[in-house]
Amino acid sequence: MSYSDRLHDAIAAKGTPALVGLDPFLDRIPEDFAAVHAPDSSLAERAEAMGDFLCAVVDVVADRVPAVKPQSAFFEVLGASGVAQWERVVKHARAAGLLVVGDVKRGDIGSTAAAYAEAFLTGTRGTDPDTLCDAVTVNPLLGHDSITPFLDACERAKAGIYVLVRTSNPGGSQFQTKGEPTLTDQIADAVVTWGEGLIGSGGLSSVGAVVGATHPDELAALRERMPRTPLLLPGYGAQGAGAAEVAAGFLEGGRGALVNSSRGILYPPREDGEDWRTATSRAVDRMRADLGAVWGGA
Amino acid sequence: MSYSDRLHDAIAAKGTPALVGLDPFLDRIPEDFAAVHAPDSSLAERAEAMGDFLCAVVDVVADRVPAVKPQSAFFEVLGASGVAQWERVVKHARAAGLLVVGDVKRGDIGSTAAAYAEAFLTGTRGTDPDTLCDAVTVNPLLGHDSITPFLDACERAKAGIYVLVRTSNPGGSQFQTKGEPTLTDQIADAVVTWGEGLIGSGGLSSVGAVVGATHPDELAALRERMPRTPLLLPGYGAQGAGAAEVAAGFLEGGRGALVNSSRGILYPPREDGEDWRTATSRAVDRMRADLGAVWGGA
Repeated sequence: MSYSDRLHDAIAAKGTPALVGLDPFLDRIPEDFAAVHAPDSSLAERAEAMGDFLCAVVDVVADRVPAVKPQSAFFEVLGASGVAQWERVVKHARAAGLLVVGDVKRGDIGSTAAAYAEAFLTGTRGTDPDTLCDAVTVNPLLGHDSITPFLDACERAKAGIYVLVRTSNPGGSQFQTKGEPTLTDQIADAVVTWGEGLIGSGGLSSVGAVVGATHPDELAALRERMPRTPLLLPGYGAQGAGAAEVAAGFLEGGRGALVNSSRGILYPPREDGEDWRTATSRAVDRMRADLGAVWGGA
Repeated sequence: MSYSDRLHDAIAAKGTPALVGLDPFLDRIPEDFAAVHAPDSSLAERAEAMGDFLCAVVDVVADRVPAVKPQSAFFEVLGASGVAQWERVVKHARAAGLLVVGDVKRGDIGSTAAAYAEAFLTGTRGTDPDTLCDAVTVNPLLGHDSITPFLDACERAKAGIYVLVRTSNPGGSQFQTKGEPTLTDQIADAVVTWGEGLIGSGGLSSVGAVVGATHPDELAALRERMPRTPLLLPGYGAQGAGAAEVAAGFLEGGRGALVNSSRGILYPPREDGEDWRTATSRAVDRMRADLGAVWGGA
């Protein structure tokens, strides 16, 4: 089944478009995971404890969200030990029935992009298939031959990609909103073209787009410009957007968008002495309820 | 000493601006490294043999080039085992006196970019500093806050970055040459600004630019537009550019540019029964001689 169809089913089964971003800022990981913080722990010990935390987060959220989005940078900072934990966390999340969107934002010339597509979507000889992602984020600056290998991988592995179209950060406007048509609109049109060969039985493509929820007017326009494109909406929660800001991202019946929250779920405010699991669980329920008011799904 | 000054000294010491790209396409690695190709080898065994090859390449080229550029994708495709070999190869190259430009093309929102800058340039608590790079390539699509953490890291670690300004691949023209000013020119102007605080005693910044040698006219214009910016020029050799195409990249005295060749050095034509080391050694000498005709350095 195509990624877009699997995504649709997962969202329907969990009754929410909430996506939990796994951004393990080392300094903010709960104190229970002592080796992350101990001054004398090795890189491998810190990585292992970070993995323990993320697997525990997966266990807390698994029955209430359709997908998680690990952010590669926070694993890579711990070197090969960190990447080993990436594989462990991906495997753990998939075993828990979650879709995994690898936030890797890779982009390179064709022959190199092919290696990245193998690294994250199809594997090479010897790869444990359970460590691969269902979808990854990709950076389109290098143009069509940087994307084609990912499209081929999506076809072979029934996987998906989310192309950066409009990012949620302050610097996103420096280049993306310039030009006529803007760079963002040029990329959006390319996303539609790239996705034409990967339309699932539900009518949506497996070629998605990242569109920051911090720009709600642009989101509405981009939703119209890419009518069959699954959106990944960062910017909700810690970055400032609320449910009202993501509403324009959904198609009829609540289809076509995942709304990401990372820091708001992993490091929510805690009452005195409260276990982190309790606080994270409450944060997920609040996000589900908050999004439920605008989502429009069943 | 700043990256730009260390780079200048390394180029002067080796008498060439030749940069050897370490792109270990698994299928093309010489048959001597049997575990790469054996149908029953594990991912870790394949990775180890790939690392053996790359360390041997480093040994062949170390006294004749100033720097090497490992390409992250080809390590990542082998998972955590591959990333462990990245660390090994970086360490081996630095121990051999080479500068290491990590070709990672990372780009993300500020807080995530900070993790990438730690991962490759400054390290975190527990990182072996010998596994860090002297410089990395970065993708500027997300704008200034995706770059600032790398600038801070360059300051702290005396490291460098090369920002993608104009790429060498066919798809590079899809977005980069559109607009007035073009996206490439907008990025080039930003590179100049970002580099202002990191000018070394030799007058060049540690904020460099990637400019494909496959577009010689644009290279000349970009050299003028970024007069104090070290350039990294891909596209020489397998991608079709020759010495004439890179000539416009050099400043007076041959300063300000590294010319990359990856496949042309790692997988050169071999005579019947010839050892790969002999062929690679000859390819390096040819590249040095070829570039010597246009370089202008001493």
